[in-house]
Amino acid sequence: MRGLMMSGKLLISTLIVHADRHHGDTEIVSRRVEGDIHRYTYRECHRRTRQMANVLTGLGVKDGDRVATLAWNGYRHLELYYAISGMGAIIHTINPRLHAEQVAYIANHAEDQYICFDLTFLPTIKLIAAHCPTVKAFIAMTDRAHMPQDTGIANLLCYEDLMDAASDDYTWPTFDEETASALCYTSGTTGNPKGVLYSHRSTLLHTYAAALPDTLNCSALDVILPVVPMFHVNAWGLPYVACMVGAKLVFPGAGMDGKSLHELLETEQVTMSAGVPTIWQGLLSYMETNGLTFSTMKRTVIGGAACPPAMLRKFQDTFGVHVLHAWGMTELSPLGTVCAFKSRQLETSLEERYAVQAKQGRAVFGVDMKVVDEEGTALPWDGKTSGALLVRGPWVVSSYFKSEDKLDLKMDADGHGWFPTGDIANIDADGYLNITDRDKDVIKSGGEWIGSIDLENIAMAHPAVFMAACIAVKHPKWDERPLLVVVKKPNVELGRDELVAFYEGKIAKWWTPDDVVFIDALPMGATGKILKKKLREQFADYVLPTI
Amino acid sequence: MRGLMMSGKLLISTLIVHADRHHGDTEIVSRRVEGDIHRYTYRECHRRTRQMANVLTGLGVKDGDRVATLAWNGYRHLELYYAISGMGAIIHTINPRLHAEQVAYIANHAEDQYICFDLTFLPTIKLIAAHCPTVKAFIAMTDRAHMPQDTGIANLLCYEDLMDAASDDYTWPTFDEETASALCYTSGTTGNPKGVLYSHRSTLLHTYAAALPDTLNCSALDVILPVVPMFHVNAWGLPYVACMVGAKLVFPGAGMDGKSLHELLETEQVTMSAGVPTIWQGLLSYMETNGLTFSTMKRTVIGGAACPPAMLRKFQDTFGVHVLHAWGMTELSPLGTVCAFKSRQLETSLEERYAVQAKQGRAVFGVDMKVVDEEGTALPWDGKTSGALLVRGPWVVSSYFKSEDKLDLKMDADGHGWFPTGDIANIDADGYLNITDRDKDVIKSGGEWIGSIDLENIAMAHPAVFMAACIAVKHPKWDERPLLVVVKKPNVELGRDELVAFYEGKIAKWWTPDDVVFIDALPMGATGKILKKKLREQFADYVLPTI
Repeated sequence: MRGLMMSGKLLISTLIVHADRHHGDTEIVSRRVEGDIHRYTYRECHRRTRQMANVLTGLGVKDGDRVATLAWNGYRHLELYYAISGMGAIIHTINPRLHAEQVAYIANHAEDQYICFDLTFLPTIKLIAAHCPTVKAFIAMTDRAHMPQDTGIANLLCYEDLMDAASDDYTWPTFDEETASALCYTSGTTGNPKGVLYSHRSTLLHTYAAALPDTLNCSALDVILPVVPMFHVNAWGLPYVACMVGAKLVFPGAGMDGKSLHELLETEQVTMSAGVPTIWQGLLSYMETNGLTFSTMKRTVIGGAACPPAMLRKFQDTFGVHVLHAWGMTELSPLGTVCAFKSRQLETSLEERYAVQAKQGRAVFGVDMKVVDEEGTALPWDGKTSGALLVRGPWVVSSYFKSEDKLDLKMDADGHGWFPTGDIANIDADGYLNITDRDKDVIKSGGEWIGSIDLENIAMAHPAVFMAACIAVKHPKWDERPLLVVVKKPNVELGRDELVAFYEGKIAKWWTPDDVVFIDALPMGATGKILKKKLREQFADYVLPTI
Repeated sequence: MRGLMMSGKLLISTLIVHADRHHGDTEIVSRRVEGDIHRYTYRECHRRTRQMANVLTGLGVKDGDRVATLAWNGYRHLELYYAISGMGAIIHTINPRLHAEQVAYIANHAEDQYICFDLTFLPTIKLIAAHCPTVKAFIAMTDRAHMPQDTGIANLLCYEDLMDAASDDYTWPTFDEETASALCYTSGTTGNPKGVLYSHRSTLLHTYAAALPDTLNCSALDVILPVVPMFHVNAWGLPYVACMVGAKLVFPGAGMDGKSLHELLETEQVTMSAGVPTIWQGLLSYMETNGLTFSTMKRTVIGGAACPPAMLRKFQDTFGVHVLHAWGMTELSPLGTVCAFKSRQLETSLEERYAVQAKQGRAVFGVDMKVVDEEGTALPWDGKTSGALLVRGPWVVSSYFKSEDKLDLKMDADGHGWFPTGDIANIDADGYLNITDRDKDVIKSGGEWIGSIDLENIAMAHPAVFMAACIAVKHPKWDERPLLVVVKKPNVELGRDELVAFYEGKIAKWWTPDDVVFIDALPMGATGKILKKKLREQFADYVLPTI
């Protein structure tokens, strides 16, 4: 027997309609590529979103067509988010930090019809323009006055010109909520990039879950600045969350340096932000160097890579900003777990609470997770036994876009498919996830695992260390041993022996890195993650002193 | 094109599985009909829920069958919530405060297969047992030691006996999320009671929305005591919300008096509660008389009827408990709006904020609302223009259970059906709903509406008034004029003229009630609402002094 409730569909257009209707005066503030600060309201944003839907309809965009963006976080990008998905097409957010060949590969694989881009990325567009046969035109996200001249790009359109010519009379269509809404390729540390195709349903469910008090805890009282890019898993869902709850949105554009970020956080009275550890490292260094503080920031979400405990303490103890340590993936829309406390933990010591916060936290309702051994048997939740992390839920990928090789879901006895995350983790009795490694980054010494993240976290706690990465180096006796690669802070002294000694008493003796190498900069991926694969290649022939 | 996400279904069983898996040690505490306090954990609750699913399967309960409850808020009721819905049957929560004939009517209309009841309601069961042909057995929610003797009921079973005999090995089935999960009849102030049939999907979406920061703001740090009964719109969804977020649950059982409630709120360190104004009136009176305070209570949800501003101030100013004024209906699962602040309002004066809080608040994401005139034209959101309130969304009723006459949904130009709530309201520019009347309670004087709720709220602010209701009385010149019916606090003096004078300067002069009648008690419905229909009958021939 079916229930007798209305059939209201979970569609992305309902988010911007709600924001307009219930928070029409709430602001959206953007630092523009053109150099200035732009501000308008949800009402105006919705109006222009409807105009853009008419623009795209006029350009022949149909249900299911892919329209790509190569853009910073900004209001025009937000308009494209809602216009493209809302009309039934698919927004394909491309990471502009990728090499031009990779951008072209992705655009061709996705068969993009149009590519909208911020002026910053014109050089990339110039390189790919002749190599993307499906692209009918490139749309520069700027006005007539800022349009580049003599680009050599055959079909170059101007975003604001198109907008000016379009009506704002548009009614959002209703369709099946399983319809695809957005496409995001994983950065592809191995093989070609793979596309994750989100649906309206998965996005709306993820948005509800993301806004919950124990997840990102967003309300109409919040001012949200997503540092995490809108080209990277939809800025962890924040552009959707903000509309659902009516929070003010602040977009940093290209200003991702410490100074620009701090200025915007302060002038716009931001209460909440989100990003990867490497970006925060830059902001915190800038603030410490210049003796700055936060006046409105309440909390920040840190994910994308494990948050070093030293950074956690700096945010909380020095700057009074609560850290929400989170774990997710492109394949998870992205939220899997967030580290929110349980009542009991609030009564424990500061040290015990920091130990909890160093973990990635509890599963958001909707996501189910387990760790399994090599035979696929579920491991106990004892906070010690590590295994491969598997997840499932309505915002978890079931297969990749146009993927020839089927995604290798792990089936359980009840017939449920589980997505293998590629992470190695343990889960404690309270359900707190602790990622100990990526399975490809694991160091296997004498048949036992050494957690590279633990070793990096200890190094990061040393006052002279700016960044650290730990990789496996071949060893004739132990098979692999850990090598620590470190970037020092400017103008400090730090030697190999001092750093090795720093591990004493903090970890099992045989986990201690066999050697330390100091370099000027770590290789970074397009989403701000350290590329350990590159490091391993670089140090493939490194000879450890213990050999 | 469809998205490529997993098909995870929105099913009620996933809530109790999540609570067990991630909050297995969190407590559920119940004041039992047997007299004592019972406590166990989500893990144990889930175990017994699986046992109960086996019990019901053994009793022949199949998909879509209705199993009824006549019970207080307690752990066994919670087990039935999850066992019955989880297995694919329908839990039918009957209001035990209804007359026996009404209970029988509803049970027969729903074709209930079993009726589970708390011992308190044995007298009702005795009266109806012979008149419910579809009911195969009545299940007393108690243990063998407390089973009533010589009841004369042919098929009487013992809940704990059945439980003891059942295995806890049960796997929750997967089925379409639109499947019916629960049935609740509206109290039916006019005509026969009408059944609202919720689905798994509507319940899960409502649960996500209900837990949001600007709705009920529930987290694992909360201890929730639902005063609102589980037989009344699923205790406003709190038994589902608590499982989703892992909050501790405290059930008051039959102890709904001020003393019992206050004791439980304190000993169990409750942080959040929810109920109708009349229940709170009892608790606050008891606390003031005995000079008591709250030590852990942070907020309370007040809905079911408009919250008098005087009660709002008492909670916040005297007791330091933040009030969430809410509006909902059985037909809305029930949440429609909750009064959470916007940033701007936090900077206004205390008086301005109280004026906002006196309204029922903003639409929860998922619910769309509008006020319309008699022709169905949408009225402006100006905070003044009142009209009929219409709503739509995925947890709003589309038709009543086995209803011969179709529900009269109002269609708009886009083909959407809107549910006519029967409330008269206005909405302000910020989207805050203000219910001014039930359409059946409206007082129409000289062709203009007088808002009975406004008049009652003013009376409630008088220190000598315990309760007040305002009704229309016939008037030869003005058609109708307001009559105020008042219950005084014990041992106070209050005259008609003093109370009429109290209105001066607070309201348009012509709104002032024409007369005041003092009575000992107001007629109350089964859900704690004042029965104005009864009052109107009682005072049908009342002659106003102004005639």
